[in-house]
Amino acid sequence: MKMSSLFVRTLREDPVDAEVASHKLLVRAGYIRRAAPGIYTWLPLGLRVLGKIEAIVREEMDAIGAQEVHFPALLPRDPYEETGRWTGYGPNLFRLKDRKENDYLLAPTHEEMFTLLVKDLYSSYKDLPVILYQIQTKYRDEARPRAGLIRGREFIMKDSYSFDVDDDGLSAAYDAHRAAYMRVFRRLGLDYVICSAMSGAMGGSRSEEFLHPTPVGEDTFVRSQGGYAANVEAVTTVAPLPRDFTDLQPARLLATPGAHTIESLVTFANLHYPREDRAWVAADTLKVVFVTLIHVNGEREVVVIGVPGDRDVDMRRLQAAFDPAEVTTATPEDLARHPEIVPGYSGPQAVGPNGAPRREDGTGGAPRFFIDPRIVDGTSWIAGGNATDMHVFGLVAGRDFTADGIIEAAEVRAGDPAPDGSGPLELARGIEIGHIFQLGRKYAEALGLTVLDQNGKATIVTMGSYGIGISRAVAAIAEAYHDDFGLTWPIQVAPAHVHIIATGKEDAVFGAAAELAAALDARGVETLYDDRPRVSAGVKFADAELLGLPWVVVVGRGLASGTVEVRERRTGARFEVPVAEAAGVLAERVETALQAARD
Amino acid sequence: MKMSSLFVRTLREDPVDAEVASHKLLVRAGYIRRAAPGIYTWLPLGLRVLGKIEAIVREEMDAIGAQEVHFPALLPRDPYEETGRWTGYGPNLFRLKDRKENDYLLAPTHEEMFTLLVKDLYSSYKDLPVILYQIQTKYRDEARPRAGLIRGREFIMKDSYSFDVDDDGLSAAYDAHRAAYMRVFRRLGLDYVICSAMSGAMGGSRSEEFLHPTPVGEDTFVRSQGGYAANVEAVTTVAPLPRDFTDLQPARLLATPGAHTIESLVTFANLHYPREDRAWVAADTLKVVFVTLIHVNGEREVVVIGVPGDRDVDMRRLQAAFDPAEVTTATPEDLARHPEIVPGYSGPQAVGPNGAPRREDGTGGAPRFFIDPRIVDGTSWIAGGNATDMHVFGLVAGRDFTADGIIEAAEVRAGDPAPDGSGPLELARGIEIGHIFQLGRKYAEALGLTVLDQNGKATIVTMGSYGIGISRAVAAIAEAYHDDFGLTWPIQVAPAHVHIIATGKEDAVFGAAAELAAALDARGVETLYDDRPRVSAGVKFADAELLGLPWVVVVGRGLASGTVEVRERRTGARFEVPVAEAAGVLAERVETALQAARD
Repeated sequence: MKMSSLFVRTLREDPVDAEVASHKLLVRAGYIRRAAPGIYTWLPLGLRVLGKIEAIVREEMDAIGAQEVHFPALLPRDPYEETGRWTGYGPNLFRLKDRKENDYLLAPTHEEMFTLLVKDLYSSYKDLPVILYQIQTKYRDEARPRAGLIRGREFIMKDSYSFDVDDDGLSAAYDAHRAAYMRVFRRLGLDYVICSAMSGAMGGSRSEEFLHPTPVGEDTFVRSQGGYAANVEAVTTVAPLPRDFTDLQPARLLATPGAHTIESLVTFANLHYPREDRAWVAADTLKVVFVTLIHVNGEREVVVIGVPGDRDVDMRRLQAAFDPAEVTTATPEDLARHPEIVPGYSGPQAVGPNGAPRREDGTGGAPRFFIDPRIVDGTSWIAGGNATDMHVFGLVAGRDFTADGIIEAAEVRAGDPAPDGSGPLELARGIEIGHIFQLGRKYAEALGLTVLDQNGKATIVTMGSYGIGISRAVAAIAEAYHDDFGLTWPIQVAPAHVHIIATGKEDAVFGAAAELAAALDARGVETLYDDRPRVSAGVKFADAELLGLPWVVVVGRGLASGTVEVRERRTGARFEVPVAEAAGVLAERVETALQAARD
Repeated sequence: MKMSSLFVRTLREDPVDAEVASHKLLVRAGYIRRAAPGIYTWLPLGLRVLGKIEAIVREEMDAIGAQEVHFPALLPRDPYEETGRWTGYGPNLFRLKDRKENDYLLAPTHEEMFTLLVKDLYSSYKDLPVILYQIQTKYRDEARPRAGLIRGREFIMKDSYSFDVDDDGLSAAYDAHRAAYMRVFRRLGLDYVICSAMSGAMGGSRSEEFLHPTPVGEDTFVRSQGGYAANVEAVTTVAPLPRDFTDLQPARLLATPGAHTIESLVTFANLHYPREDRAWVAADTLKVVFVTLIHVNGEREVVVIGVPGDRDVDMRRLQAAFDPAEVTTATPEDLARHPEIVPGYSGPQAVGPNGAPRREDGTGGAPRFFIDPRIVDGTSWIAGGNATDMHVFGLVAGRDFTADGIIEAAEVRAGDPAPDGSGPLELARGIEIGHIFQLGRKYAEALGLTVLDQNGKATIVTMGSYGIGISRAVAAIAEAYHDDFGLTWPIQVAPAHVHIIATGKEDAVFGAAAELAAALDARGVETLYDDRPRVSAGVKFADAELLGLPWVVVVGRGLASGTVEVRERRTGARFEVPVAEAAGVLAERVETALQAARD
């Protein structure tokens, strides 16, 4: 590659819509260009990085016996209708009609199609196990595409699917993917944390995310010194043991005029109803939050969430708990259907099993009530009195109220204990670069994928689904490998290995640089030669730093004394090499680095 | 690859929707599966063929200095609006809205985006020339997807675009592509004919199609012994010279009751108005055909086409002549706006410049009239008399009527002279596998792509666009390389080189076959080893013939005497080889064949 003809133009200014380093630098260095919100074009240098990542992913997938196929992106509605995802995907799904008014979609993932393909070809337990994968363009109509390649609307993923007759087979396929992903991310030079990604609510299936820790990541996760890691949605609360409440005083309904917030309630209580042992704190109060679930069938249901008053409800955790229903703010119309709600003064005794029962036709009644695991039997609370300016003091869980269920919806905080006892949690952010997931039999059941077992009996196949964000990995690597001056690619994914700069105007310099490029090419070293004749050395240096190839060779003044300067882009280390030895030295360094990245 | 685990199942029955051999065999042999009409999934074997074709195309594009990029498939409406293609593409364009109700499309080709990208990065004549290409998934909502991969709705193309400051540059880029395409198709083993593809109406730009001749092709083209080739739309008619008409008799309006077809008119004329020198023939009559143009702005216009009565109007040629307007049948409502039309008896004297003039506001008047090039001044015709049961005899072009223009709309027939004088034409059918096209300045003008020339003056860039149907090439190769038993891939695109079959039940056979597979793998020969233990030799042979790998090795009975049988799939030639020499012999044959396909 020669800079004089390479289709690239570097920019000195950050793009106006860019907030994170990877987005700024990939655009400024001419790797990608925006075509529409969340939709990018790959320029030659970017496409080379993408290709190298794809090759590494292919090698590791092939190594676990996965077979590559390729599905269309444009798919008919029917299979997604059968699994409920046509509607379940909500506004994130790009939907369209063809000229005959048939419904189509742009696939966000391909579980349905892989399931149907295996159903189409296979029929016996002897055909299994099989792992299939593709590297393919996916579509998701994100509400807020952001951060360049990190959250796009058209993006490239490796998705694979495993098919097994039994749970042991699924476990083996899952473990094989887990190990392959560890190798992939290590080979890409990407630091990762494997986070538990599922609450128990989904039926015990196993799911983990590979997060690349970075402050610009949009996923929050927690980890402990002792090795626990989970995304925030999956963190389970360490609940206290239930307490004996036989000796507790009856609850008292007390006037709390104007105390319709937790803060004002605590202040009022300390002023007018002080406790003897210590002051009241927010954690003594029970906060109720009303939200509306929009079920997949479109039905709206108001539910009530009870959490200790010192914690907010985390909408992502709430959403994960109620998935596939969508959690949204309760509107005045939603609330109007529940006259028992007293804004600012609602409490447990009017909702869930404690409130009005449903009518015989299933309508009416109090909204369902879900409580935080910390609200165990025997805990005592200050809660809303279900009348304006009134609160109940000493309201005891399990004695004065019960709930429809326990929910993991309260925010997770730094210092909370890890559920496995491995110490206090710290919060961090990351980019999701991989996800492995034991789907189980959900899709096979919905689409009728069975095989005959040893006894000739039809048995439902169990599946796993596994993804790697290929285009997102480009951004994650750029986040991990850059400095104030530009990108600093790991050699195994760099668009080329060596950036040769000819400085000055002398023909001898350009001749020597061209010779060096040819010598490196002959040794299999990929080069980008900046052969631009009327461009200053300063501009060339700045471009080389921005583009971020691992090795920079400057052919210039030193040539008079027979040397060139070699710079290591990431460390800034520089040394002089006799021009005749330069190709050999660089080829060896490149080969050593590539080998190290492979092992 | 081992048959026991390879994700493939061969079918004995043709798919019900398949009409052509490539479609039947690619599905039956497990290379592709239908996902929706005109939309296919690539199974492992098909994906390998596709990959090999892509690699050959990449090599030849890189060899002419083209640089690879990758555009999104999902694109915003705006650029296509600016070039008129948002509407101009009609129902062939997949259109959709995102969650914010913005218009998007699935790109059928990327002229707009490439133009904008170059505009984005480049500004000086010094930046040019540049050739960019991509291998990418394209979408076209065909009214009648058919023949499997030959006419699909989601398909893979290599599209490239050249950008030059002047016509000479464009010519050079065009010629480079033409030569590269010749190399590509030769390397793919695909016979091709380069057909002229443009009528002069488009302003002299050059355009040629690469057609693979096959009876199942959907493009009709013509060729002469002398080397002329063109698609039917581009054939120009050899017009006779104008004749002196000073001595011709005046036209006579004669009664022709009931003669409202060409056939009945000729019969009637010979009976009642016989000519002395010979009988009247259809070619003596002038047929007028009414069609409606739907212009890009939606306006409907009736136009009249005049052709010699022995020829039909070819709707594809007519469509090409009026592009981008859409040609459709004139409805009764369309015709009602022209009271001068007398069904069955209309003639030139009531239409075009010979009919009622337009009103001052531009409305009304006779429909426009276009004539076949054979209707030169001085030719004499029997034509409609514009009154029921009446025809005009001896109506002379240039004396009694004129036209609004000449049009190439009459059917082309075998035996018609080639326009370049290279002999009579024959008609043939082919699959369009490539298309090269001098776009000129149309897109650059519409989207404002200019560069500063040597004098600092903005000059509009001139462009070429060039396509190869990658997925269609798979089908074309399958059409060219198959027999009654299955596919017979050329080695350079075969999913693997050698198909090893172990027959019988003896461990020694399977051991020897596995050893041979390993020995071939070690030599870089790609193998598919049929290691299925309980499958009959007959089934294995049939599968090998269906899958179509170039070499088949049978390890079986011969092993007792130390030999294996080698079969050449295409020729059926068989010979015995000592088992110890088999790997060496095959590796040499494979390497020789691959080398021959490269040179």
